[in-house]
Amino acid sequence: MANHTENAAMRRAIELSSRSQDTTPPNPDVGCVILDADGNVAGEGWHQRPGGPHAEVVALRAAGDRARGGTAVVTLEPCAHSGRTGPCATALADAGIARVVFAVSDPNPVAAGGASALRAHGLDVESGVLADEAAAVNTRWLTPYRTGRPFVVWKYAATLDGRSAAADGTSRWITGPQARAEVHRLRAAVDTIVAGVGTVVADDPQLTARDGEALLPYDTQPLRVVVDSTGRTPASARVRDASAPTWIATADEVGATVDGGVNLSKLVTALFDRGQRYLLLEGGPTLAGAFWRAGLIDRVIGYVAPTLLGAGPNALAEAGVDTINAAIRLELTDVATVGRDLRLVAVPRSDTTAVDVDGNEPHTGAVLHVSTSQEG
Amino acid sequence: MANHTENAAMRRAIELSSRSQDTTPPNPDVGCVILDADGNVAGEGWHQRPGGPHAEVVALRAAGDRARGGTAVVTLEPCAHSGRTGPCATALADAGIARVVFAVSDPNPVAAGGASALRAHGLDVESGVLADEAAAVNTRWLTPYRTGRPFVVWKYAATLDGRSAAADGTSRWITGPQARAEVHRLRAAVDTIVAGVGTVVADDPQLTARDGEALLPYDTQPLRVVVDSTGRTPASARVRDASAPTWIATADEVGATVDGGVNLSKLVTALFDRGQRYLLLEGGPTLAGAFWRAGLIDRVIGYVAPTLLGAGPNALAEAGVDTINAAIRLELTDVATVGRDLRLVAVPRSDTTAVDVDGNEPHTGAVLHVSTSQEG
Repeated sequence: MANHTENAAMRRAIELSSRSQDTTPPNPDVGCVILDADGNVAGEGWHQRPGGPHAEVVALRAAGDRARGGTAVVTLEPCAHSGRTGPCATALADAGIARVVFAVSDPNPVAAGGASALRAHGLDVESGVLADEAAAVNTRWLTPYRTGRPFVVWKYAATLDGRSAAADGTSRWITGPQARAEVHRLRAAVDTIVAGVGTVVADDPQLTARDGEALLPYDTQPLRVVVDSTGRTPASARVRDASAPTWIATADEVGATVDGGVNLSKLVTALFDRGQRYLLLEGGPTLAGAFWRAGLIDRVIGYVAPTLLGAGPNALAEAGVDTINAAIRLELTDVATVGRDLRLVAVPRSDTTAVDVDGNEPHTGAVLHVSTSQEG
Repeated sequence: MANHTENAAMRRAIELSSRSQDTTPPNPDVGCVILDADGNVAGEGWHQRPGGPHAEVVALRAAGDRARGGTAVVTLEPCAHSGRTGPCATALADAGIARVVFAVSDPNPVAAGGASALRAHGLDVESGVLADEAAAVNTRWLTPYRTGRPFVVWKYAATLDGRSAAADGTSRWITGPQARAEVHRLRAAVDTIVAGVGTVVADDPQLTARDGEALLPYDTQPLRVVVDSTGRTPASARVRDASAPTWIATADEVGATVDGGVNLSKLVTALFDRGQRYLLLEGGPTLAGAFWRAGLIDRVIGYVAPTLLGAGPNALAEAGVDTINAAIRLELTDVATVGRDLRLVAVPRSDTTAVDVDGNEPHTGAVLHVSTSQEG
């Protein structure tokens, strides 16, 4: 049973694990705290990027000799395999760690077995400590193991009155340069960008990750997927250019819905089978509505510009909601300013408690982070 | 010329003046700092509500004898008239204040003359210190003097995807109970609530200020105004009940636009002539669009619920914008959570600098306040 000090260390490790969410994909977000034999914090670490040291190794280095006889508190089961770095289970044993407390068991069949390996080395091991909180931070990485499909983020940009384009179809630029730069960092973090053929025909987006004008290298570009039931993506579309791989996903190839559209559940399963784990859904409104109807969205990132249009399409259409009580209910998890714009992050509500007659409902107590941007 | 200490005191007085914005109408928002003869802060005050002591009097009481030979730093010219309270100019002189530094001259012909009265008492007087900053906090009260019409706040409620009602017209409740309670406090603060006849016919709102189920007293209810070109508000409409005064404003009575609608510029002038100074525009989208086209909106308060509908009307329509470069540009001034919802406050941009080809534009440096609500 984890003691008070270990629980506090796990809270800190979870906080550390949330630090580098844009740079860790496709790896998990992991934090680690090393307590010395007296229960004092001897080292901290988090995993920053693929190829970089794992959280446990960073924390062990910081702790040095103080790790001997101590406890490692880590948000994910330490790995037992040698990838680009050696197995953490061995590193922990070699450093003289006596006990390991971790939150979430590793669902990855290649890396799992860390707990067994640690026990085989003679360490005391406890799992499941603050597992829900740790899993919430790491949901981007854990969801594909649980669902057999990529983690899906729906990104939209809109005005205060909810428009994603003006009456004449123009949408450059709804949001400011800081928000657009953020979207490019998000594109660089995911492995898949999805758009509907309607958006491709109307706006001819390139759907690549760029840093200013510069295209990031081909090997860091996400797969571009056009959901295109009948294969009408123009041969000259920018999304077909050589800057990144592209898949024109037709109903014939993926499987069709009853109305002839691309079966999205089959699409995301097919993407998982191709190795895709982190998907950014960029548009348009009808495709977003179809993803919601299929229950395939894990996170919403909305950029709201302080402008008004009074006409033009909304970011979301045909989501299968006819009346207010059937609204898709989310929980805001982050609100921040990005330049002049606002960035809202929300996740689908897990509780399904209906509102009462006055519209009152229980609060889930989820933590909402509200801040101004650091780079504004 | 105000010295460094007086400037700092004025900044503090401006902060104090912003404390009770919901309770001061129809009075101005005023803050005051009393410096003793050595320049140390001896007392602070702000005006809290009509009938309550003015900011200067609160600050003088706090300062006591330390006011003698000191300086009063106040965001608005001290009054020279006896209303529900005695003239502040006399109170300052009687307390032995030697110098008065104020920001904004009083535009109210009844209360003005404070500076002259102070000088007549032998005090040294300086005006215009941080006048723009002080005026920004007090804009609700100052705007009618400048424009000859009420200060106009447009309030809307919408989902994340910008819908103010579902496809079937249902809109109870878009936002949660905390947001709705805030709107009732706002209704109690204004003296006029305006809605279009379309909203009255569709939703039959009562448009009164209520505290929970309880209607506030008749003498604190704002005037209800229905913008109703042809006078088709039903006789049985709740907006016509006895709980508050009501004006059905027709094109015949107010004056008509070329297309037969109510001339809104004439409407707000007529309201000013009736003594109305603080107007809350509640709906619907077409009327809001007409107010924007007429350039009659001073502040936007948006309540955004973390829900999605995918269909249904937006909060704003027909605002006269056809293309993205003609968007109405605002500046966010406050973002806060209210229960599960988000409250955004924005004001029209005063700078008209066009964006460059990349959508970059200069930042005005307006202060954005971002916070979680105190009452959650």
